[in-house]
Amino acid sequence: MAKDIEVGGEFQAKDYHDPPPAPLVDAEEFIKWSFYRAIIAEFIATLLFLYITVLTVIGYKSQIDKGGDECGGVGILGIAWAFGGMIFVLVYCTAGISGGHINPAVTFGLFLARKVSLVRAVLYMAAQCLGAICGCGLVKAFQKSYYNQYGGGANFLADGYSTGTGLAAEIIGTFVLVYTVFSATDPKRSARDSHVPVLAPLPIGFAVFMVHLATIPITGTGINPARSFGAAVMYNQDKPWDDQWIFWVGPFIGAAIAAIYHQYILRAAAAKALGSFRSSSAM
Amino acid sequence: MAKDIEVGGEFQAKDYHDPPPAPLVDAEEFIKWSFYRAIIAEFIATLLFLYITVLTVIGYKSQIDKGGDECGGVGILGIAWAFGGMIFVLVYCTAGISGGHINPAVTFGLFLARKVSLVRAVLYMAAQCLGAICGCGLVKAFQKSYYNQYGGGANFLADGYSTGTGLAAEIIGTFVLVYTVFSATDPKRSARDSHVPVLAPLPIGFAVFMVHLATIPITGTGINPARSFGAAVMYNQDKPWDDQWIFWVGPFIGAAIAAIYHQYILRAAAAKALGSFRSSSAM
Amino acid sequence: MAKDIEVGGEFQAKDYHDPPPAPLVDAEEFIKWSFYRAIIAEFIATLLFLYITVLTVIGYKSQIDKGGDECGGVGILGIAWAFGGMIFVLVYCTAGISGGHINPAVTFGLFLARKVSLVRAVLYMAAQCLGAICGCGLVKAFQKSYYNQYGGGANFLADGYSTGTGLAAEIIGTFVLVYTVFSATDPKRSARDSHVPVLAPLPIGFAVFMVHLATIPITGTGINPARSFGAAVMYNQDKPWDDQWIFWVGPFIGAAIAAIYHQYILRAAAAKALGSFRSSSAM
Amino acid sequence: MAKDIEVGGEFQAKDYHDPPPAPLVDAEEFIKWSFYRAIIAEFIATLLFLYITVLTVIGYKSQIDKGGDECGGVGILGIAWAFGGMIFVLVYCTAGISGGHINPAVTFGLFLARKVSLVRAVLYMAAQCLGAICGCGLVKAFQKSYYNQYGGGANFLADGYSTGTGLAAEIIGTFVLVYTVFSATDPKRSARDSHVPVLAPLPIGFAVFMVHLATIPITGTGINPARSFGAAVMYNQDKPWDDQWIFWVGPFIGAAIAAIYHQYILRAAAAKALGSFRSSSAM
Repeated sequence: MAKDIEVGGEFQAKDYHDPPPAPLVDAEEFIKWSFYRAIIAEFIATLLFLYITVLTVIGYKSQIDKGGDECGGVGILGIAWAFGGMIFVLVYCTAGISGGHINPAVTFGLFLARKVSLVRAVLYMAAQCLGAICGCGLVKAFQKSYYNQYGGGANFLADGYSTGTGLAAEIIGTFVLVYTVFSATDPKRSARDSHVPVLAPLPIGFAVFMVHLATIPITGTGINPARSFGAAVMYNQDKPWDDQWIFWVGPFIGAAIAAIYHQYILRAAAAKALGSFRSSSAM
Repeated sequence: MAKDIEVGGEFQAKDYHDPPPAPLVDAEEFIKWSFYRAIIAEFIATLLFLYITVLTVIGYKSQIDKGGDECGGVGILGIAWAFGGMIFVLVYCTAGISGGHINPAVTFGLFLARKVSLVRAVLYMAAQCLGAICGCGLVKAFQKSYYNQYGGGANFLADGYSTGTGLAAEIIGTFVLVYTVFSATDPKRSARDSHVPVLAPLPIGFAVFMVHLATIPITGTGINPARSFGAAVMYNQDKPWDDQWIFWVGPFIGAAIAAIYHQYILRAAAAKALGSFRSSSAM
Repeated sequence: MAKDIEVGGEFQAKDYHDPPPAPLVDAEEFIKWSFYRAIIAEFIATLLFLYITVLTVIGYKSQIDKGGDECGGVGILGIAWAFGGMIFVLVYCTAGISGGHINPAVTFGLFLARKVSLVRAVLYMAAQCLGAICGCGLVKAFQKSYYNQYGGGANFLADGYSTGTGLAAEIIGTFVLVYTVFSATDPKRSARDSHVPVLAPLPIGFAVFMVHLATIPITGTGINPARSFGAAVMYNQDKPWDDQWIFWVGPFIGAAIAAIYHQYILRAAAAKALGSFRSSSAM
Repeated sequence: MAKDIEVGGEFQAKDYHDPPPAPLVDAEEFIKWSFYRAIIAEFIATLLFLYITVLTVIGYKSQIDKGGDECGGVGILGIAWAFGGMIFVLVYCTAGISGGHINPAVTFGLFLARKVSLVRAVLYMAAQCLGAICGCGLVKAFQKSYYNQYGGGANFLADGYSTGTGLAAEIIGTFVLVYTVFSATDPKRSARDSHVPVLAPLPIGFAVFMVHLATIPITGTGINPARSFGAAVMYNQDKPWDDQWIFWVGPFIGAAIAAIYHQYILRAAAAKALGSFRSSSAM
């Protein structure tokens, strides 16, 4: 864990391949089946994500109300596992198909870093939001009365927290997630650290798990605009709609900061831009 | 996580080996010790799976009734861990011996994708059901009174849920599991994504963990016909037998949908079948 | 996950190296520092294992008694995590030094499979028992009153379970653990399945976690004679001493069955012994 | 897991590269952007670590007080996961940038083993302490009343434990962590055990998780002076300041013992120092 940087500095030649920035519109994408397949995969993955997690939330709350076995429910810990674990499974399954975003904030961050084209980013986000709506719709269809009674897994600000706190919680939470995504997919690091390409989906899932442990009491934890939007559409009450902007603005700001932090600080694009002559060895 | 598809498109030659479809009856299998060894491994693995998980369920419920330390039990979260964790361990142990199915629905899905022969599929399912019966039998032998008192780990529809809901829950839950299995064993992806072959047993275990978190309140979570059948045989009450068909029909439909989704959408067999000339590069 | 066996059968030459059986007494071992270092590592690892796990057990029980926050304790789920997680960490740390046994039953199983010499096995077991005593001693020194009050983490048969049930629970539990250890260290499988050598410590830890979830209500879960012995020495009450034989006989029988199952069924030593001419290709 | 040492002894040539000891002051470091980038990464990582974990602690305690759903909180198990899981994620993300210390005790241990220069060690510790203060500051800014009411995540000795017990708990806990770090980053082991370089961040995170399970009831678990210092600065009450020395002296002693154990026992520097002629083959 130490002296990695120095060791890294000894490489004479770059042992990694930095792909060129993605164009805004990539005409070639449209004629490939892999492009449409990726959009379908994002739709299905987000649908399954919302289905499993919201069902866990509702099931947990209904369990408590039935009384008796009050401690038998999965608790906030179980809910946090559901969100983090599903992201682990789904990133694992879809990474090779669509890149495994399952989250408009992740797509936005990767678009800012020019790793996906604008067209792909927009279509991914649409697929994610549609998938989230369908996933919540399934849960509602299964157990309509419970669904409405227990909040439908919708995100809103808990009592006693200001808008600023909620917004900040979403920004920092999404920063943690998108920063992990950037670390896991950095081609330069993959070439050097053997744990990076192999473990990749696991820390991404854990980042989601961690943020849920910390911020469920504040906002219910969004850090995924599609998740918040899908739940709001299906629950359709005033409170989640009033607070909905927090769950879009916060995650997008957080993702943007993560992209800037990774590209300009960690990848030293800043140093390069300043014309530092020793940047190639210093990195 | 992004642009993987494009990068993949740059490969000039296929860097993976797609095995030919398995024949329905493979006469050569019968003279190999590895074939009988695989059936024994499936039997032992399913036995251990049911033994550990049903013991966890019974132990948890008996703990609660003894009163006092009501919250000390493992809870639904612990039960979900037991199912998911055992699948992780057993898939890890038996993957190289039998393929690590431990579940007739998984065997059925892989049979549909022509990855196992019909004879192998049938014998695996028989071994799994027999293993499940023996595993539950061990738990019953250990603690007969608790076993009957606490439901014997049997699957049935909880009060307040319709048959359709239960069936849908089993279908989608099995889809999540079998879709993960297909993703983890796709030879094309293994060649490209280093996390696929290495992590394989972990996301499969996590998929089982996640589905249990979500659907234990609805059906007790089957997604494994051998598990539901073994528990029903040993518990032998009307309710689990009446609902038993749900835990065969649901998982088999879910596995079939996962096989179709993987083969025709993700592997683009559909595009190929339509004679797409660019399919080799587009994938 | 399927057809692995057939694929394996296509290898013309063995791609793995099966080490020769370990001699009963290996004179060369005694002049190597690595031999003594391994014994020290086993001692320290077992000490840390007992220290962390028994402290978790005592801390959890004292938390409950202080009342108020009854649900805040780690519960049986947390205790099971402590045992499983520590085995994961310690096997990871000591695998390259001593083989990472930390358990006389594991050492016994590997001795039966002729993977360690008799001298090494005996000295490992002595180091493990001594380490366990010291680990429990540390906990007792820290909090003597709590230690005695809350059972000192000692293993004994819970009320309502027969001796036969306890013994069987220990046998099957140890079988699960030692079977996982054999699967994780099989040189033949490592050559073929990329997840085997990489994940190894994780499923071993999970196997311990799973068995604890299932059998804590029955025996407190031994499956490790050093752990049961160390706790009995420090707690020093009649009950744990009366039941102590269960926690030696059970694990040793379970380890022996796992060794036989792995060597004669899965590795097909039986088929070989019968002079099967096609065994080299059939495996 | 067995006979590894013998197998290792068969290597004719060293298959690993032991980097030379780091100098106390490495003038070349100062002109590299990677040096400043590493310090920034340590600052950000420690900030995120404290932010997520202290928010989890506070959120959990506020949840309980709101009554009703007393068992729904994450519990000590959830808090232990937050600490361990964040270390896993952050070590994964920063290992290639700064070595992923996020803890002055880890930095101190690696400095003793001459793996980082003195200048780097001092600046890392400063960055970690500053990051911890900022992380706790964020939590305090979010929810000031809760923060003060629920102890601000500060470390202090719980009632009924002596100073010696608290100090010993910190020493042994930090030993477990730093010993795992040394095992995970040993270049000699990485060359031989394929699980070492790949899993590295996971057992480090689990070590933190385990120690928290065991010692939260005693000291709240420090094992990270920056974490204890940051929380004390923000909470700013007498008790945490009075006990603060325990959370610096304990971890530093524990890290030193781990460094000595790894360098002189496991790496056999002692044997070498004694001029053992067979040390090169014996290791």
